[in-house]
Amino acid sequence: MYCPEHFTEADANEIDRIMAAFPLATVVVATDQGLLANHIPLLRQGDDQLIGHIAKANDLHHLVEDNTEVLAIFQAEDAYISPNYYPTKPETHRHVPTWNYQVVHCHGRINFDHSTKGKTAIVGRLTSHFERQAFGDQAWRMADAPKDYMAGMLDNIVGFTIDIARVVAKSKLSQNREPVDYDNVAEVMMAEGKQGLGQRMKSLKDSD
Amino acid sequence: MYCPEHFTEADANEIDRIMAAFPLATVVVATDQGLLANHIPLLRQGDDQLIGHIAKANDLHHLVEDNTEVLAIFQAEDAYISPNYYPTKPETHRHVPTWNYQVVHCHGRINFDHSTKGKTAIVGRLTSHFERQAFGDQAWRMADAPKDYMAGMLDNIVGFTIDIARVVAKSKLSQNREPVDYDNVAEVMMAEGKQGLGQRMKSLKDSD
Repeated sequence: MYCPEHFTEADANEIDRIMAAFPLATVVVATDQGLLANHIPLLRQGDDQLIGHIAKANDLHHLVEDNTEVLAIFQAEDAYISPNYYPTKPETHRHVPTWNYQVVHCHGRINFDHSTKGKTAIVGRLTSHFERQAFGDQAWRMADAPKDYMAGMLDNIVGFTIDIARVVAKSKLSQNREPVDYDNVAEVMMAEGKQGLGQRMKSLKDSD
Repeated sequence: MYCPEHFTEADANEIDRIMAAFPLATVVVATDQGLLANHIPLLRQGDDQLIGHIAKANDLHHLVEDNTEVLAIFQAEDAYISPNYYPTKPETHRHVPTWNYQVVHCHGRINFDHSTKGKTAIVGRLTSHFERQAFGDQAWRMADAPKDYMAGMLDNIVGFTIDIARVVAKSKLSQNREPVDYDNVAEVMMAEGKQGLGQRMKSLKDSD
């Protein structure tokens, strides 16, 4: 990804936040039949691994071999940025429109897991994480479903891990604008309900 | 993309809506140095072409030649779907968590445009489209900026077109659930502010 220094997101906590808040990753591979992307919720396991699963009917596990290079993209909020958002516009008119956004790219290698034990562990971690996040104590548990049903569901999926080799993260947030313009873009983001972008702009300013 | 029949989005108007409402596309290429993705606002030009531009400092136009295969991904809203959202859960318990989302994948070939005329036309169309959408009559115009400034800005970008060869679109919206569960998921989506997902679920039901 093209990522100039001033847009590089180097804060590990912010990278974690983006991956956790926008877990539906775009998982890209290059196959003999061309580029292929699937949209899969992923969970970080330790610092260097992502876990997820796909339907057994998804050709991905036939099209690519274990240890194939993949790119997993986590995309946070984005917003069109108009020259009208810059208070200095009437003075200089030296502005053009742009787009702000935050993304995390995890480059790594995928390995599939067809074992019942491995799949149960992956599904268990994902379920427990997302259900607890959504419902706390009222979380649905895998044990709530009949055993024959869960066995059938597990039989219809393939688990996988992605070993992360390299992370590139970008927070494109008007860091290259005048302070007065930067501040107003942050206000516009908050007013538009893009809290993630607005809050990150404010925290970047506070940490200056 | 893995896309079973019941999740395939075949409605051209809905595909247009997604691309227009979520224009910041993920543009993926396979290079000698591995998979590479950039996040670029794209605009449809006719049925078969996308237009956009990148910074001249972005290596993309050096790393890939004209006519290289690219995948442009437009990602709409997404939502975690808990078994707790299904009214039939207490009766059958035959549910597991999933994720709903809408995406459009445009497979095609990229060609770069280094000409001032071509770049002016591309930037002009993008600016006019997004500014009019945001500000109507109050839209900022390229002519508002000083000529030397605009010439410098144009000099620092590279325009491109993507000729679309194939579109694959997916609306994964609980179409495989019982009607009573489907209806409640649609209500939850609306209540969670995921209007795009909720509205599409309702319109799909009405068109049944």
